[in-house]
Amino acid sequence: MHVMIIGGAGMVGGKLAARLAAKGTLAGKDIERLTLVDVIEANLPAGKPAAEAIVSDMSMPGEAERLVALRPDVIFHLAAIVSGEAEADFDKGYRINLDGTRFLFEAIRQEGLRDRYFPRVVFSSSIAVFGAPFPESIGDEFFTTPATSYGTQKAIGELLLSDYSRRGFFDGIGIRLPTICIRPGKPNKAASSFFSSILREPLAGQEAVLPVSEDIRHWFASPRAAVGFLEHAAEIDLKPLGHRRNLSMPGLSATVGEEIEALGRVAGDKAVKLIRREPDETIIRIVSGWAGRFDARRAEQLGFRAETSFDQIVRAHVEDELGGKV
Amino acid sequence: MHVMIIGGAGMVGGKLAARLAAKGTLAGKDIERLTLVDVIEANLPAGKPAAEAIVSDMSMPGEAERLVALRPDVIFHLAAIVSGEAEADFDKGYRINLDGTRFLFEAIRQEGLRDRYFPRVVFSSSIAVFGAPFPESIGDEFFTTPATSYGTQKAIGELLLSDYSRRGFFDGIGIRLPTICIRPGKPNKAASSFFSSILREPLAGQEAVLPVSEDIRHWFASPRAAVGFLEHAAEIDLKPLGHRRNLSMPGLSATVGEEIEALGRVAGDKAVKLIRREPDETIIRIVSGWAGRFDARRAEQLGFRAETSFDQIVRAHVEDELGGKV
Repeated sequence: MHVMIIGGAGMVGGKLAARLAAKGTLAGKDIERLTLVDVIEANLPAGKPAAEAIVSDMSMPGEAERLVALRPDVIFHLAAIVSGEAEADFDKGYRINLDGTRFLFEAIRQEGLRDRYFPRVVFSSSIAVFGAPFPESIGDEFFTTPATSYGTQKAIGELLLSDYSRRGFFDGIGIRLPTICIRPGKPNKAASSFFSSILREPLAGQEAVLPVSEDIRHWFASPRAAVGFLEHAAEIDLKPLGHRRNLSMPGLSATVGEEIEALGRVAGDKAVKLIRREPDETIIRIVSGWAGRFDARRAEQLGFRAETSFDQIVRAHVEDELGGKV
Repeated sequence: MHVMIIGGAGMVGGKLAARLAAKGTLAGKDIERLTLVDVIEANLPAGKPAAEAIVSDMSMPGEAERLVALRPDVIFHLAAIVSGEAEADFDKGYRINLDGTRFLFEAIRQEGLRDRYFPRVVFSSSIAVFGAPFPESIGDEFFTTPATSYGTQKAIGELLLSDYSRRGFFDGIGIRLPTICIRPGKPNKAASSFFSSILREPLAGQEAVLPVSEDIRHWFASPRAAVGFLEHAAEIDLKPLGHRRNLSMPGLSATVGEEIEALGRVAGDKAVKLIRREPDETIIRIVSGWAGRFDARRAEQLGFRAETSFDQIVRAHVEDELGGKV
């Protein structure tokens, strides 16, 4: 089988590629070809199927057709301009996140009109499709009223995915990822950056800044869980979804205070003391409009699994990024 | 003030134009100019503001810019390919219903980037944004999982309208119309056609066919109520909506049996006897997937009003279309 990861140079895309290359199979079939697509050249993982990188911007005319002409059996569509950038650059966000996604879906349809083609499409959506105010817990039938252009573009991608699937052009599933924590790498300018850095930096013996109060509650899953969601989404039978093809993924509802307690249990007080409180009103305002808890029952019933404690999330980071050592 | 109705040759657009031309004001201001846009030349209503018709297909490059360059203060966007046609012709549905809408919104944004411009935009959406299975009553926070391409295109229009409004490019509101009943004119091939024809034809002394059972429940408003919704949507302060700019309109939940009882009360047994039962499995299947009841609380709180009995709906038709005579 041929697997294509669009957004293969990103953090989650890279981890998914590494996982698939190491395992060598998907849905019980050998992966014979693994193609990583991104606007920059993706790192190729070691493993059995020979991976190849294609540099392509899917929002440019003809690019989606070029990719789909390779007729991958499974397409992971993870490529996106992130929330902050889509808000700062309206045109770029709509071009990459909306047009790029629509071009891909339409290229698949056109390929199928030429010659029978029915790939599995796994689309990474986001809990940003929801906008405050929220109920105590966001259920599977809560409406999508995004508070950002990024969330709007993801919600539109979900609708297109459902309609193209309903019409039989491909077999699609959209999965709304929780905030990924602990993100490896360096702090960035995203408002959510601190959720990871207050754990990641102390675990590496470095200082981190906490810009919000400890009672802020949010919805988390580890990079390992995110890769697991994507893999599972590519493997399960989607008929039970009917035309409701988009699912909020399970996650862990936790406060910043609970994050810090888990850090203490795994890495001790010394690590906790490396967190410096420095309130930032802008970040406090943004983060207070984010969802804190979901009831992701449909996804759970379909077998999607996330961490159930922050200790697990911290330990996953220690194992996957720090070679098991704190 | 300059009012533009896009879709001005349609049934609702024509009635809205007639209403505005007769009243001469909107939101307390004189209407100095009334422009009716459609792919065919709209009939011009009699009244104080001189109306003009523009023939334009907004899904064609440059057309939206040409319309917006006239800088209307209020734009009613009612133009759409209907459900059946959007399902039969995938490309045409997306071109007219999605691209056309996006071109309009983007043309308004570009006009505003050139020179301050902030029109009110009233977008006619549809309860087709919802897809079965439904709860007993569909609340304001129920999710949009359309079962048709038409519903998908309307749901995407809603998301774009919200985002463009949130970003300050225009002051938009989307209103989800119930099934309009009694539609004047002739029966058509729409699956919903019988809801109107089983009343309209007998009221005119003609036979009508009923293809479903009397216990089918659906959600209705008269053409008069629809015009009222549009007018109200153009007049109210939208700040209380925040970024949740799309509203299910109030309506009347009624069964086919209740429709027929109302016909009997208004026009007597002779009219009821003109309804011929002729079950149609295709129509039964389509209609059984439609919503029967909404709890349109937000719209009601904002002052939107529909009929509260089918007698009122029948009488509105008799007054508006039959000169008061049965």
